[in-house]
Amino acid sequence: MLPERDVVLEEYNMSVANSPNARLDEQIMAALYLNHPYGRPIIGWRHEIEKLDRKDALAFYRRFYAPNNAILVIAGDVDAAEIRPLVERNFGSIPAQPAIPARRVRTQEPETAASRSVTLSDPRVEQQSVTRAYVVPSATTADPGESAAIEVLAQLMGGGSNSYLYRALVVDKPLAVSANASYSSISLDPTEFAITASPKPGVSFAEIEQVIDSVIADIARNQIRAEDLARVKTKLIADAIYAEDNQMVLAYQYGEALSTGLSIEDIRSRPDRIRAVTAEQVRTVAQTWLEKKRSVTGYLIKETTAPKHEEKRS
Amino acid sequence: MLPERDVVLEEYNMSVANSPNARLDEQIMAALYLNHPYGRPIIGWRHEIEKLDRKDALAFYRRFYAPNNAILVIAGDVDAAEIRPLVERNFGSIPAQPAIPARRVRTQEPETAASRSVTLSDPRVEQQSVTRAYVVPSATTADPGESAAIEVLAQLMGGGSNSYLYRALVVDKPLAVSANASYSSISLDPTEFAITASPKPGVSFAEIEQVIDSVIADIARNQIRAEDLARVKTKLIADAIYAEDNQMVLAYQYGEALSTGLSIEDIRSRPDRIRAVTAEQVRTVAQTWLEKKRSVTGYLIKETTAPKHEEKRS
Repeated sequence: MLPERDVVLEEYNMSVANSPNARLDEQIMAALYLNHPYGRPIIGWRHEIEKLDRKDALAFYRRFYAPNNAILVIAGDVDAAEIRPLVERNFGSIPAQPAIPARRVRTQEPETAASRSVTLSDPRVEQQSVTRAYVVPSATTADPGESAAIEVLAQLMGGGSNSYLYRALVVDKPLAVSANASYSSISLDPTEFAITASPKPGVSFAEIEQVIDSVIADIARNQIRAEDLARVKTKLIADAIYAEDNQMVLAYQYGEALSTGLSIEDIRSRPDRIRAVTAEQVRTVAQTWLEKKRSVTGYLIKETTAPKHEEKRS
Repeated sequence: MLPERDVVLEEYNMSVANSPNARLDEQIMAALYLNHPYGRPIIGWRHEIEKLDRKDALAFYRRFYAPNNAILVIAGDVDAAEIRPLVERNFGSIPAQPAIPARRVRTQEPETAASRSVTLSDPRVEQQSVTRAYVVPSATTADPGESAAIEVLAQLMGGGSNSYLYRALVVDKPLAVSANASYSSISLDPTEFAITASPKPGVSFAEIEQVIDSVIADIARNQIRAEDLARVKTKLIADAIYAEDNQMVLAYQYGEALSTGLSIEDIRSRPDRIRAVTAEQVRTVAQTWLEKKRSVTGYLIKETTAPKHEEKRS
């Protein structure tokens, strides 16, 4: 039987080491966060996993797996008054871990001074891509209304085939085979906003980036159209409502939100907050947060020949 | 009177914030080290300095400023047997700090998967530059002979007007106004090897980098000439001998070396270790450590106009 550490290493190999895409993401995160622990991969760095032993695993478990560090979410046709005694009977005897502080000290990001790029070349790359990532406020750290505006911005820019990036890069000019934008709003500290596009063969990254830059500049400069805003908001609200059909998704959403400092009220009012987003707010968040000098650009390149030191004389 | 924290912030402003060069160095270091604390600026991040108070300063002082964490270097015409009782009388009563561990846990770097770049644009830039930085072994972490070979490599590539980079970039082709290479060998953990060049007006960074890449490829591929090797070694050994004329420099060298895990014997044998470096060793360290995918390239650009979102339509 494999020791547990080798299982983790195997998982690392499958999910990160053997996936150039995941490896690039790992490197983008490390470049994006200069000071915050979010720059470290959740599974860990390979060389550190290799050194862990049973003692480390048990110490971690004893330190963090305690009821005063846990949220229990129960999803289903249950009544809180009925279920509470059951929970207390089953879990009530597990002792709290007094060493867990109510609030941990987490290093925060410095003001960003320089744009960064990360280039990963690998022969296993099937589809080249360029990713632009920014650190932006999370639902927990944002000013009122700001996080909802960033959600709308992400959907507007890169959610589906009507989005600005998709239209500009895939439909209007045939430069890319895909284009999208994403925002992970659920996070204790500031989080990522990312744009990704995969160029068609023969199209340079520079051409793609030029279009990305002008889509951002357009949004930051001009009022977005009312019909686009309405369409995007309807889509986000509908998605939120559909998600409630799935008990698992629902449980997950509450758990994630509560463990990152949001309240049940924050979760329930999300559709209203999306509905309240104005065109001006979308423009403001694009102006404020999608500045190039705050960004990391990641390039995923198919390595065709792999000489260690290619001579490139002009 | 300014509180001490404001003095530190003032120093930060003078030495980092108001110097685009220093600011770029700060950002290069943060990009170069993905996991090791060397990625954090020694003076600290501005937003963290701002939060420090008297209590933090005293806690730091009490934790680290103790004889079991200090090295006393006395330089001058003294005799150890005579000076020791004086030292014991003056410093002997200072108690050790038992909380200081003999060896601290320091996170180490993961294997590097992606080349990175950092671009800093600032209207105050007087001379644009491109810097290529690599993490390489320090005198403390290197295999036997390796650190001396890297010292020779740095001198050969970028030490003065006979160096390969200077000849290629400044003399043979008039592409740059300056070119140099540096290696900080004295370091507890792996350290930096950096190449910097300042392009002439109108010369692109790409042109400069192409020459840097071919100089590296040349060294990694071909045996360096015996006369170059001899010249460089003579220069390094002479510098080491001249440095001994200055008591302050000498004291500093011993202090730095001893505090990073080297021995007095390591310091004394440095000229011999330089003398023993072979052409093949220089080639090996260039091949092993100056791989592009392990590097960070930093660009310092004079910002001429500063629109927040420049529109760049083709």
